[in-house]
Amino acid sequence: MFEEMKERVCEGNVALSEYGLVIFTWGNLSEIDFKKKIVAIKPSGVSFEELEAEDIVLLDLRGKVVEGDKRPSSDTPTHLEIYRNFPKVKAVVHTHSTYATAFAQALKEIECFGTTHADHFFGRIPVTRKLLKEEIVKDYEANTGKVIVETLKEKKIKPLQVPACLVANHGPFVFGDSSKNAIQNAIVLEQVAKMNIETLKVNPETSAIDQALLDKHFLRKHGKNAYYGQRLQ
Amino acid sequence: MFEEMKERVCEGNVALSEYGLVIFTWGNLSEIDFKKKIVAIKPSGVSFEELEAEDIVLLDLRGKVVEGDKRPSSDTPTHLEIYRNFPKVKAVVHTHSTYATAFAQALKEIECFGTTHADHFFGRIPVTRKLLKEEIVKDYEANTGKVIVETLKEKKIKPLQVPACLVANHGPFVFGDSSKNAIQNAIVLEQVAKMNIETLKVNPETSAIDQALLDKHFLRKHGKNAYYGQRLQ
Amino acid sequence: MFEEMKERVCEGNVALSEYGLVIFTWGNLSEIDFKKKIVAIKPSGVSFEELEAEDIVLLDLRGKVVEGDKRPSSDTPTHLEIYRNFPKVKAVVHTHSTYATAFAQALKEIECFGTTHADHFFGRIPVTRKLLKEEIVKDYEANTGKVIVETLKEKKIKPLQVPACLVANHGPFVFGDSSKNAIQNAIVLEQVAKMNIETLKVNPETSAIDQALLDKHFLRKHGKNAYYGQRLQ
Amino acid sequence: MFEEMKERVCEGNVALSEYGLVIFTWGNLSEIDFKKKIVAIKPSGVSFEELEAEDIVLLDLRGKVVEGDKRPSSDTPTHLEIYRNFPKVKAVVHTHSTYATAFAQALKEIECFGTTHADHFFGRIPVTRKLLKEEIVKDYEANTGKVIVETLKEKKIKPLQVPACLVANHGPFVFGDSSKNAIQNAIVLEQVAKMNIETLKVNPETSAIDQALLDKHFLRKHGKNAYYGQRLQ
Repeated sequence: MFEEMKERVCEGNVALSEYGLVIFTWGNLSEIDFKKKIVAIKPSGVSFEELEAEDIVLLDLRGKVVEGDKRPSSDTPTHLEIYRNFPKVKAVVHTHSTYATAFAQALKEIECFGTTHADHFFGRIPVTRKLLKEEIVKDYEANTGKVIVETLKEKKIKPLQVPACLVANHGPFVFGDSSKNAIQNAIVLEQVAKMNIETLKVNPETSAIDQALLDKHFLRKHGKNAYYGQRLQ
Repeated sequence: MFEEMKERVCEGNVALSEYGLVIFTWGNLSEIDFKKKIVAIKPSGVSFEELEAEDIVLLDLRGKVVEGDKRPSSDTPTHLEIYRNFPKVKAVVHTHSTYATAFAQALKEIECFGTTHADHFFGRIPVTRKLLKEEIVKDYEANTGKVIVETLKEKKIKPLQVPACLVANHGPFVFGDSSKNAIQNAIVLEQVAKMNIETLKVNPETSAIDQALLDKHFLRKHGKNAYYGQRLQ
Repeated sequence: MFEEMKERVCEGNVALSEYGLVIFTWGNLSEIDFKKKIVAIKPSGVSFEELEAEDIVLLDLRGKVVEGDKRPSSDTPTHLEIYRNFPKVKAVVHTHSTYATAFAQALKEIECFGTTHADHFFGRIPVTRKLLKEEIVKDYEANTGKVIVETLKEKKIKPLQVPACLVANHGPFVFGDSSKNAIQNAIVLEQVAKMNIETLKVNPETSAIDQALLDKHFLRKHGKNAYYGQRLQ
Repeated sequence: MFEEMKERVCEGNVALSEYGLVIFTWGNLSEIDFKKKIVAIKPSGVSFEELEAEDIVLLDLRGKVVEGDKRPSSDTPTHLEIYRNFPKVKAVVHTHSTYATAFAQALKEIECFGTTHADHFFGRIPVTRKLLKEEIVKDYEANTGKVIVETLKEKKIKPLQVPACLVANHGPFVFGDSSKNAIQNAIVLEQVAKMNIETLKVNPETSAIDQALLDKHFLRKHGKNAYYGQRLQ
């Protein structure tokens, strides 16, 4: 019954590797079927070359495996925490992509310096606080999810408007309304992070773009008055 | 009647992707037939993998579609503004290529640091002023074209001598006397921007090359006394 | 009798080239059979394209060739010094990979800035002191091994916990409990070095991650309480 | 009679493009037959994709074409100047490779920071002074060769010991005792330049390696006491 979903999640995980966002086993993609409350996620420590659809693990929202022989990704509690709090998020991608991870390691937000960013992220990309020692020692992966949720809520960020959060000292978690969209956002995030670093090299005093330009670019592609692309038929 | 033009514009748009200048739908190429006053441009939001010659949209210089089922690129008014003001420009390329965009985001011109630049651009590559709020809210894409025209005219730049302009907080628009030439200029622009950043890392005090060297390199490749390459037969 | 080992060492050396860690003849992989006290290593100055299993040289731990027509790598005395001092090390990789070498040339340790590093290296990656003139003039390659051993011992580093050492003004030597593992560590080292440089660009004041996070990530993948990956069957 | 030489020079020019050292027509390789006093060089402005052995132009040392229908590279007078002054140089490569060109544009020598450099270049890589206006206006390409010769002679550099010179505001010219060797040196130069920039990012105070280490690495690969590689048979 979830064969298509497993196929899609398998292909999506492989795509992360093909797009150069992950090497070895450093990343994962999950997708949720919100009606049936089922999450499909990559198994832990399986390389992208060997991954097959039947390896994808199905769980309920409390983390109980409902299908699959393998252990789910060790990051599963992080993904579940995001799904439980943001019902519009249909897919989550985690990577250690180089430039986005550099910001996460530097504990710095990614400021919006141009329309490439504004076309996909409605403002700066947040970074979480560092986890406390007790949050690391016990329930680390769930607490990683909780600090993402805390960060978005405190900053009043809707996860499909700014579909990424950098976990301090770790790397990006990226959201989407589908697996395809979440993967695309992860690619754009990496490109935006790289451009941001190069921009700061050219001019360390660069500041964020004006709100009017941010509104224009994000809203011409997203929301009810969007006019970018072809009319859906 | 415009089948060859549509074929060429389709192939040129695909080439932008193959040369790594654009990902997803972040860029476009247009070409003008100045005698017939017809512009051929990429449709909006169509991916480069799926693009076919029949998708290319034909418009007149006021933006009225004369052939094609699809919406033209949302950047069409920018392209038209350039063609209306610079009759020698036969093709326009827009990209978000990483290093050129870094300069656009940093609001910095690309200074001429060497002969690679001088072989293709007869001096520094300009950046526009930021658009005003009212220019963003209404007729944004046409105003983007107007600020490019304003910048070139104020700086007394001939667009085939310095065939690129960086739009502030956005990215490069590149010109050519043919689609092939505009694409080549977009590739060179990106390479020159990258070299410029690396040069500033080696020596932040680097200054522009002497006028005599700029003249020598640009004019041995362009204009009536050019002696680079093979004699045309 | 050592055919499999020679095959594996040959393939591993070729892999260094395929992963972009070495060009020309700038690197080598060796492996030890500790029971039989035999080391298999790449021959000197043979390109990776031409390398075949029968070219692999077998030596005893004092450096006496026991099989093979070719001269062993000029770095052989360095490898042997490591094997003689650290019996748990089963394979050694030497490269001049760009970013790790940048740290070696800068005489700087690679600080642990994030979980990508912590997943594979249990703390900062050390750099040796510079060799003295007399250590360079005589027995240079053996002295290179000695200064690696000296560095790890002084810093009380177990080579399978922090499986790399940067030789000052030279480049990385990387360790593993197998050829495959040593190669993987060399790839991760290069990626971690690159991320570290980008992180410092974003925030030059970045400091090392907390010990609790380092413990969590290293120990969930290594050691008796590891829970990452699939259970071995 | 020079068919093999033309074939080799054609393949060598194509290799420059394949190794990513040149794009479009930004570079060239020449080779000299010193006994017959004949130089073979790439024709001007011909793309590397279209280049064939029969396009290679043969000239004498005064620049008179002795075989070939095409105009020789516009850089020919530079190459000839080098051959006339340094009889041991058998091949010359010119590129605009990104990182080496960054140093040329920044008017900075490439300091020897490590053994990767020392294995191939016996000390820092020089940069010429800027050409005077009168040297640019008249006989520009010959004067480019003269300033290379002047730089090497003033610094007492033997061109096969430090087989590269950066021309100010322009890019590298690289030497070899064969086409293959000159191409290899051009690849190494670019890699060394990149590593040097990264090293300075890690530690802006990095200084050159000790003379003893420079001697050790260069001389174990070059000269009469070399012990790197296999014995020639």
